[in-house]
Amino acid sequence: MAPKAVVLLSGGIDSAVAAAFAKSKGYEILALTVDYGQRHSKEIRAAKKVAAGLGASEHKVLRVDLGQFGGSALVDSRLKVPKSRDREEIGRNIPITYVPARNAVLLSLGLSWAEAVDADAVFIGAHAIDYSGYPDCRPEFIEAFRKVSALGTKRGVEGRAVKIEAPLVEMGKTEIVKLGRELRVPFESTWSCYSGGEKACGVCDSCIIRLEAFKEAGIDDPIEYA
Amino acid sequence: MAPKAVVLLSGGIDSAVAAAFAKSKGYEILALTVDYGQRHSKEIRAAKKVAAGLGASEHKVLRVDLGQFGGSALVDSRLKVPKSRDREEIGRNIPITYVPARNAVLLSLGLSWAEAVDADAVFIGAHAIDYSGYPDCRPEFIEAFRKVSALGTKRGVEGRAVKIEAPLVEMGKTEIVKLGRELRVPFESTWSCYSGGEKACGVCDSCIIRLEAFKEAGIDDPIEYA
Repeated sequence: MAPKAVVLLSGGIDSAVAAAFAKSKGYEILALTVDYGQRHSKEIRAAKKVAAGLGASEHKVLRVDLGQFGGSALVDSRLKVPKSRDREEIGRNIPITYVPARNAVLLSLGLSWAEAVDADAVFIGAHAIDYSGYPDCRPEFIEAFRKVSALGTKRGVEGRAVKIEAPLVEMGKTEIVKLGRELRVPFESTWSCYSGGEKACGVCDSCIIRLEAFKEAGIDDPIEYA
Repeated sequence: MAPKAVVLLSGGIDSAVAAAFAKSKGYEILALTVDYGQRHSKEIRAAKKVAAGLGASEHKVLRVDLGQFGGSALVDSRLKVPKSRDREEIGRNIPITYVPARNAVLLSLGLSWAEAVDADAVFIGAHAIDYSGYPDCRPEFIEAFRKVSALGTKRGVEGRAVKIEAPLVEMGKTEIVKLGRELRVPFESTWSCYSGGEKACGVCDSCIIRLEAFKEAGIDDPIEYA
């Protein structure tokens, strides 16, 4: 029987590639999408399509209302997602779209599921290069979370801690898109835009980074832009 | 203005004492109860009373359905909470009531709220001595989570990480009860029993530990037992 891995799936490209990577390593995929109060449900629907497209054996959508806490444009409807950041500025500062402690929350929930069903690993698509300035996408954060898995779980105490895998952490976005193509990631099912329109906006940080990566990779982005 | 602290409040004695301790240190209390699918709502109601009794400026109850994941008698209705463990056995093994990665989930959520509202600390009532064998109640786990706060948040990057405070971590249960009395914790509002009956059962691990602690502290436990 294949070992199991919980894969955090957002509906975006990075997590889809991380999931395809886990699959290529022989894992049975348990996909976990945390609906933490993102401002639109487009991402959740994309995650469902990606999970199906990659043959996940299960896909759970867990609601955790971080919007109650406020403090981020992604979960607090009073704050506006900026549309006009300079490309130069992306990556230099922590953006308003940062969700406090988001990856700690996601990894904890993934770890909980993994331990409950005796899965061997949790995969996350975080990456620090070309990233948008999020502190919880850095290798040192991932490393810190490995300690949490080793010291704060039953499996950890038994000497077989659930592995925390961030296979893209040192990769640039272009490299990720190329790897995704190799692994036959269903890019057409993914969604990166911070806005929830019919088509992707093409001008938010996330769209800008995505478009640039496809262009540099020499691959056509199959989704539609406004 | 008083600095703010998010306090994880379960409705039990330990978290109530941790909250009273935070208050005694001058913090404004933001109480957070995570309803993770415990098998009864008695604890949630107790947490509300404790938060009110201690003058918390806010109390949020956040629903996170860990029961979806299964794997623990506290959240999975197919597993039975044991009623007859030997007192000698409590603390020797990890019990069936262990909820996978629970304190990692709780601390992550507390950290998220703390950062969103610029609170200085997250308090948790975890303690390792006299504990029931939970790996995520040990000082080394708390220390690992401090790294997560330092490396995985905006405040951490800015050099003013949200503090992770576990003031009871080295204390025994009797000592905790004594400290609670000093700090005027409303013990009558707390609930420790794993069962959700009208009165506490008096025979589950949690009741046994509580009763023993009050007895050793020479304090009357004000709640009713069946």
